[in-house]
Amino acid sequence: MPEIDPDRLMTDLRTLRSFGACGTGVVRPSLSPIDMDARRWLAARMSEAGLEARIDGVGNVFGRSVNDGKALLLGSHSDTQPRGGWLDGAMGVIYALEVARAFGETPETREFAVDIASWVDEEGTYVSFLGSRSFCGDMTPETIAAATDHDGRRLADAIREGGIEGAPLARLEPGRHAAYLEAHIEQGPYLEEAGNRIGVVTAIVGMRNLDIVFAGEQNHAGTTPMARRKDAGVALIALAQRINETFPTVAGEHTVWTIGRVAFDPGAASIVPGRAEMHLQFRDQDEARLDALEAKARELIAAACAAGPVAVSIAPSNEAVQPTSMDAMLQEQIAAAAEAHAPGKWTAMPSAAGHDAMILAGVLPSAMLFVPSIGGVSHDFAEDTAEDDIVLGCRVFADAAASIVARINHPGSSA
Amino acid sequence: MPEIDPDRLMTDLRTLRSFGACGTGVVRPSLSPIDMDARRWLAARMSEAGLEARIDGVGNVFGRSVNDGKALLLGSHSDTQPRGGWLDGAMGVIYALEVARAFGETPETREFAVDIASWVDEEGTYVSFLGSRSFCGDMTPETIAAATDHDGRRLADAIREGGIEGAPLARLEPGRHAAYLEAHIEQGPYLEEAGNRIGVVTAIVGMRNLDIVFAGEQNHAGTTPMARRKDAGVALIALAQRINETFPTVAGEHTVWTIGRVAFDPGAASIVPGRAEMHLQFRDQDEARLDALEAKARELIAAACAAGPVAVSIAPSNEAVQPTSMDAMLQEQIAAAAEAHAPGKWTAMPSAAGHDAMILAGVLPSAMLFVPSIGGVSHDFAEDTAEDDIVLGCRVFADAAASIVARINHPGSSA
Repeated sequence: MPEIDPDRLMTDLRTLRSFGACGTGVVRPSLSPIDMDARRWLAARMSEAGLEARIDGVGNVFGRSVNDGKALLLGSHSDTQPRGGWLDGAMGVIYALEVARAFGETPETREFAVDIASWVDEEGTYVSFLGSRSFCGDMTPETIAAATDHDGRRLADAIREGGIEGAPLARLEPGRHAAYLEAHIEQGPYLEEAGNRIGVVTAIVGMRNLDIVFAGEQNHAGTTPMARRKDAGVALIALAQRINETFPTVAGEHTVWTIGRVAFDPGAASIVPGRAEMHLQFRDQDEARLDALEAKARELIAAACAAGPVAVSIAPSNEAVQPTSMDAMLQEQIAAAAEAHAPGKWTAMPSAAGHDAMILAGVLPSAMLFVPSIGGVSHDFAEDTAEDDIVLGCRVFADAAASIVARINHPGSSA
Repeated sequence: MPEIDPDRLMTDLRTLRSFGACGTGVVRPSLSPIDMDARRWLAARMSEAGLEARIDGVGNVFGRSVNDGKALLLGSHSDTQPRGGWLDGAMGVIYALEVARAFGETPETREFAVDIASWVDEEGTYVSFLGSRSFCGDMTPETIAAATDHDGRRLADAIREGGIEGAPLARLEPGRHAAYLEAHIEQGPYLEEAGNRIGVVTAIVGMRNLDIVFAGEQNHAGTTPMARRKDAGVALIALAQRINETFPTVAGEHTVWTIGRVAFDPGAASIVPGRAEMHLQFRDQDEARLDALEAKARELIAAACAAGPVAVSIAPSNEAVQPTSMDAMLQEQIAAAAEAHAPGKWTAMPSAAGHDAMILAGVLPSAMLFVPSIGGVSHDFAEDTAEDDIVLGCRVFADAAASIVARINHPGSSA
């Protein structure tokens, strides 16, 4: 089995953290000057590891193994949220680098083909999952030409100023790539709360979004008697409360739902709201569960509308994301490595957040490994993971990768 | 009894409507050029009626009777909402003018002292009730100097450009003014629904305002399990629903309450709200009822806070308006005149909206008369009242005024 080098792993992780460091956090939005510096540093480290490294035409850093055979692809992202943590994405990228190095240093794995990637813009400064979508052939020049960040800065300008305009795109090589693995911090509290050290991801949750619109009648809040009102705000509050009371009867263990946005129109103290809107989002790993939750929401909406006096409807533009199952064989290999390194201290679990593995799973068998997040915190400067957990996670990731490369090249064997 | 002239009444009302007419509505915000034109026209009509008429230093149009004796003050306002109706305020001003004319044409009332006013800025383009507050001595030069409209235009500039800067202020004359009467459209549906034609106002409702703040914990809407959330939005919805369910048990026949404004922070689909705010307003004519409603709200807020996990509190800046009782003798005289002109078709009722009479009642015995609003609509271009009701209202107003002047000059007598 390949042996990772904990010091080298932590040193590289801390060096990557230094690009955009801001107190305990990191500000390294994709394709910013500091992000491009980090990408050039990553490409150099990949070259030192013996990989053919380059930055592609959208910003992906890709390190291709010189070895033949069915390749395992390892990766994550090195861009951050506007005020991000130091491990979200970065840890998975450095794991991939360390695994490639450890493989090269071990006679049994030296000939294995392991390609590694730092996908660009997973966090969606311009286009969420830009890099992995480009790699999988799900990105058009038109989308890239039209994309801007929140301040109106054009993606095309960022690519040009980053010095990568016209660079060839890294693309899936169907004859070569056989599976994708990604390691990531959990971003939630389940592992820590249960005393587990490794999560084997079963699926990345799907998501439904409903924009619910309430059409009543705007009126003077002094002169309009209660019985005559068609108060859109009252209708919104009653329906929201019904949803919050009823969803637990339909929800599973990991289901989450959120009313994150509401608006009363005109929103004045002395005016009965004539119109109101609320946004309901719910997530689960099980498509049938999402169907049941949506059916319940639509039933409650229809009942509210029928009861009156306010008309309740669902706005048409409702984004949905299907749950993405992780590959069973890959999960088994990660689980076996986890059991070897942390007996009884690992669990199978869904991912409640989206990841590049969600995109890769559309074209390759894919799987993910989680390490605990302290306090469940992420997307925040306070994000952190115990160093022991970071090192353990990389050991498990390396062993799983070795088993998987052996299996995809010699089905039925074990490394 | 003085006889009003229905044609003259309606002609003047329509002429006033022409200043700022906009379809069926009127746009005549206080101290705008068109409002100043209307004020100059009103002053001229007052002069023609034999009154000493002038526009004072804040914009009040004041017509002072040349007669001696204890004077009755009649008035309302001629400014409108940004998109106002044609009768809100204007009708009461033209009633006052018509009553003064009718008195001058009737031997029995010719010597009565009746002063009339069109108060400036009742609708609060700059300062709500500016004119009546100035008349009652409740307006400082500092308040006027600091006031601006929503676009940042200064009240002081509007006064200067209106050509009235430095004009003497009309003020209450304690030895002279003995009572104040104001006629107004109801702005609500009660008269029309009950088939009544006159409302005798018992009190102008008081109002309480509570800004309620919910302090939870902002979190990722995917990775934060339901049981770990401190969702400020969930807490707001639950409390708002409790208030809407519980207030009917404390409310009286005319109580109204409104949650007109809510905000979730940060207000994004994928973020559990860490903070939320809602504005609760309630109105009633009975101070004890307002106390009971506020006690109930505070009880529900305390219970929500104690139940957790979100902290719920009341923000300190909560404006309150006390109920204002109308004078009993004045109410009796209006009721007697109403019964004479519309037997069985009048009712005693509270005013659910604020009026200049609320300010005048602080310094003079005051009362109000309402006529029906078609469909209960006001503050809207569609605002209207049947012509028969307008004329009837003025007849009742004139007779009541005559009885009242007789009484305030010869207590115990009847006109």
